Amino acid sequence: MAYSVNDPVQILAHVHSYAITQALVGACHLRLFDHMENAGIASKQLAENLYADPEAMEELLNALVSLGYVEKINAGNRTVQYRNTPISSTYLVTTSAQSLYPYIMIQGQVAYPVQANFRHAVQEGKAQVERTFGHARYFTNILANDQKKAMGFFASMHALSRVFHCPVALESFDLSAYREVCELGGGTGMVALALAQTYSTMNITVFDLPPAIEAADKFIPLSSKPENLRFQKGDLMRDSLPYCDLYVLSHIIHTYSEDQASYILKQVYASLSPGGAVLILENLYNDDKRGPQFTHMFSLSMLAFSGTRQRSFPELKYLLERQGFKNIEAKRTGSLSDAVLALKPALH
Amino acid sequence: MAYSVNDPVQILAHVHSYAITQALVGACHLRLFDHMENAGIASKQLAENLYADPEAMEELLNALVSLGYVEKINAGNRTVQYRNTPISSTYLVTTSAQSLYPYIMIQGQVAYPVQANFRHAVQEGKAQVERTFGHARYFTNILANDQKKAMGFFASMHALSRVFHCPVALESFDLSAYREVCELGGGTGMVALALAQTYSTMNITVFDLPPAIEAADKFIPLSSKPENLRFQKGDLMRDSLPYCDLYVLSHIIHTYSEDQASYILKQVYASLSPGGAVLILENLYNDDKRGPQFTHMFSLSMLAFSGTRQRSFPELKYLLERQGFKNIEAKRTGSLSDAVLALKPALH
Repeated sequence: MAYSVNDPVQILAHVHSYAITQALVGACHLRLFDHMENAGIASKQLAENLYADPEAMEELLNALVSLGYVEKINAGNRTVQYRNTPISSTYLVTTSAQSLYPYIMIQGQVAYPVQANFRHAVQEGKAQVERTFGHARYFTNILANDQKKAMGFFASMHALSRVFHCPVALESFDLSAYREVCELGGGTGMVALALAQTYSTMNITVFDLPPAIEAADKFIPLSSKPENLRFQKGDLMRDSLPYCDLYVLSHIIHTYSEDQASYILKQVYASLSPGGAVLILENLYNDDKRGPQFTHMFSLSMLAFSGTRQRSFPELKYLLERQGFKNIEAKRTGSLSDAVLALKPALH
Repeated sequence: MAYSVNDPVQILAHVHSYAITQALVGACHLRLFDHMENAGIASKQLAENLYADPEAMEELLNALVSLGYVEKINAGNRTVQYRNTPISSTYLVTTSAQSLYPYIMIQGQVAYPVQANFRHAVQEGKAQVERTFGHARYFTNILANDQKKAMGFFASMHALSRVFHCPVALESFDLSAYREVCELGGGTGMVALALAQTYSTMNITVFDLPPAIEAADKFIPLSSKPENLRFQKGDLMRDSLPYCDLYVLSHIIHTYSEDQASYILKQVYASLSPGGAVLILENLYNDDKRGPQFTHMFSLSMLAFSGTRQRSFPELKYLLERQGFKNIEAKRTGSLSDAVLALKPALH
């Protein structure tokens, strides 16, 4: 049903949209999509398998049908069964190579409760993690204190990289001219692995905090780790960066303020060889900052989680130009990551 | 931007839809729409007026533009201003007669945190108020212990009635044949007031728990209370009902289980004069329970809040037929409330 802009039911649909989040989070938490992967299943049987209430399970399944994640099929003898749609088989089943399960779980466990304090984020212009959980920085805190949650966070970023950032890293620009490459804040190394496998002449180093580097082995098995992929522990806000001719920053800049982002890009520029470049993978606003709607919502979520926000290409270009970058080019993808390539001028 | 069903960005948009809820809740909480009602205002000025962070305020305003609640206008001299769209002036400004502000605040304060426990609702098939807030029944508890929250709840239901239920009550069926009318669980009496004003020959009684009846004066001023509108304290699950020829149940049945709803409809049938009727105002699923999508989300929200769910017309018809009702007819509105009228056969 489509609502006109003056229909107040649209307001209710918007206000109730938290239920869309929790339908997905709840279904993933219960591993509902795993249980529907190989065959259709009756609602009552699924409720029994998952120790759930039969009526509530049917409500959830029908809601997931309305969102496009589940199909309702006639299994003969007036029996109705439910099964995954292709999008669920690919992205929601936990064992799928493209599974977004870890990201969805983090959104439910962390981002959803933090967003309850959104209005404080607007008043204070800063992250609401401390107000929500009683400690100041979610990421720093779980790295130090909660191994299980830390692995969940790494898994979440790894999943996003695999599904969204890798294709953009490979398809947006021809990077074959670059030899010494460093991915800053590269986490468990998914984007770097994709680049290393595609560009055999590229030597790529993943540069990130020790806990991320130590977790990488769990996500990229030794057997699939090519020789041109290395890992290096370091803090991009404190340590000097490896000298190279291409830096990759995949969903990093948006977690920093203007001043912090400028500092990082300054260090990047200084450590680049002349003629080198920086590749930024990040979800960009349209140039006039009207849409995409998803980017606006993603940005509000960032605001409550880290006190920062998404940028348009003109805004990012301005930050890069101030450090001396030239030939700054954007490729829009319509997906989570857009790509921006900026060059450090060669010596004359 | 439209996503194809196989585009994984659609999943992220769905998962992040909690930010849509909080954009509206946050903006209402800050009374942002009130401050933009009479003239356009610059983002920085609005931030100053509301003691908010200027950058965060601009993010919120642009997000509200993307959702259709705010317009961005060129105020000359390269100055950009923001102002309400018509839908916001009508439904989001607190002083508007049609304001949904109280309902949106309750959704943020109560429904959003309860929904964080949605997967437990699926497993247990019951309300998650106790798990969320530490006490069992939100409504019962606040009525007894928290006058301010109780008034917020009444205001929220009053606002929904005014905007959604009243037009449906007046437009769906000709009720001019009914003389003695009772609205069960009628709260602060908005629907009953509309009926009393429209049908001068109707005597209508609002029947609800004492706190709701006592609060009614605050919502309907004595000066606008017609003589044919009365209030009566009572509990529809315990007390005998007034004898009459039309009962109205506006957004009541969906808060009860099958057994409880059957009990209420049985009492209603018994207390109706022969030839009398019951009018049920409630958001109905499509007959095949595929959509509307809003109804699915509303139902998931009910599931976590009260452990109950929305129904289709065939489901509601079945409940009514079991008690002896005949000539059961539904009018679909495409809005929050649909209308169902069912008759108790006349004596032969």
